[in-house]
Amino acid sequence: MKLVKVIGSITSTIKDSTLDGFKLMLVQAVDFDLKEKDDFFVAADTIGLGEGEIALIVTGSTAKRTEMTRHKNVDAAIVAKVERIDLESSVIES
Amino acid sequence: MKLVKVIGSITSTIKDSTLDGFKLMLVQAVDFDLKEKDDFFVAADTIGLGEGEIALIVTGSTAKRTEMTRHKNVDAAIVAKVERIDLESSVIES
Amino acid sequence: MKLVKVIGSITSTIKDSTLDGFKLMLVQAVDFDLKEKDDFFVAADTIGLGEGEIALIVTGSTAKRTEMTRHKNVDAAIVAKVERIDLESSVIES
Amino acid sequence: MKLVKVIGSITSTIKDSTLDGFKLMLVQAVDFDLKEKDDFFVAADTIGLGEGEIALIVTGSTAKRTEMTRHKNVDAAIVAKVERIDLESSVIES
Amino acid sequence: MKLVKVIGSITSTIKDSTLDGFKLMLVQAVDFDLKEKDDFFVAADTIGLGEGEIALIVTGSTAKRTEMTRHKNVDAAIVAKVERIDLESSVIES
Repeated sequence: MKLVKVIGSITSTIKDSTLDGFKLMLVQAVDFDLKEKDDFFVAADTIGLGEGEIALIVTGSTAKRTEMTRHKNVDAAIVAKVERIDLESSVIES
Repeated sequence: MKLVKVIGSITSTIKDSTLDGFKLMLVQAVDFDLKEKDDFFVAADTIGLGEGEIALIVTGSTAKRTEMTRHKNVDAAIVAKVERIDLESSVIES
Repeated sequence: MKLVKVIGSITSTIKDSTLDGFKLMLVQAVDFDLKEKDDFFVAADTIGLGEGEIALIVTGSTAKRTEMTRHKNVDAAIVAKVERIDLESSVIES
Repeated sequence: MKLVKVIGSITSTIKDSTLDGFKLMLVQAVDFDLKEKDDFFVAADTIGLGEGEIALIVTGSTAKRTEMTRHKNVDAAIVAKVERIDLESSVIES
Repeated sequence: MKLVKVIGSITSTIKDSTLDGFKLMLVQAVDFDLKEKDDFFVAADTIGLGEGEIALIVTGSTAKRTEMTRHKNVDAAIVAKVERIDLESSVIES
């Protein structure tokens, strides 16, 4: 899974017919200390997150296995909200 | 999914027999503010886009799951036209 | 497989219903001489490792094939603890 | 798909028993204007190309779906010869 | 497939129960002229190679399709020993 920050959402009316029923969020990869990296994805939101929240996304065929994205043509999905990261010498709460 | 801009199209007459029935578009990855990145893909167009339009592509095995690309030997497909990106402090219309 | 170092763990209460029953570890890619690289993953821990340990992760659909992660929506899993790396001119014990 | 230039071929006698019946070509990723990038693949040739030709490769599980590579243990295959690239302001013939 | 050089081997006693019956080799990506790149993988060895040899690896789900790695939880496997690379203007024997 990749650690990301939700930074926005995508509006699309002309799209594959399976891409209904969930929001498409713009997410940015972050470092273990939540520093933003130069890597972006658009992911189906399966748990209901807002901008600024830290999340985990799955990519590839796994993204089509959540309850909300089964048989949907997505290759990235948000599967967890990250509340806390425990490192050896510090704790990061998000 | 990846955010891309359609920049051209590919002509191929000698090809895998499954690669008929859709256009192969050249797309360039873009940043959340639509700045072009140095990353290119050739993707099957399943929704009918033209040059300059902003789109989402799926890659990997998901690209073979749209109605138009089922059982076709593609690993990237355009699945949505992006009309609008909502960021925390701005809205980008494409 | 990728050679990684376990550097922390993730706490998430709001998540896909299949993501229970194992810990989600934060891992950092390392070089063959265990030097840290700027590449991070969150992986399901299937063997019980702690911070600082060197491990192998699998990514993609393989991550859903271990006993502990079968039918779980993960795309990365720790599958081995690395005890020793034999190079042509040196041995690295971790 | 990725846009590549065929730059050579690979000879291998000790190999997985499924890797017979097609040539293994060395290909180099190219930009939309055919400038070479620092990214190389070895791909099964399913259409019969020679050095210097521009092609499309598929990677991942799709590479095992062409007629020639079905059930072969390859993860990259050449699926099209590129004859022409139409960009907004120019046409590139290869 | 990726062109790699075998640079070492991995010892692991605590591991997924399917990771027995083959050696785990540390491999380094190489350029078409065999110059080493900064990219490493750990791959199941299905053909019996030693350090310094040039090989092809497959990654992803294909790595689980060789005779030796069927139903094993690996995502990279060595599938060929490279004896010779023919480029337009030179031949490289390894």
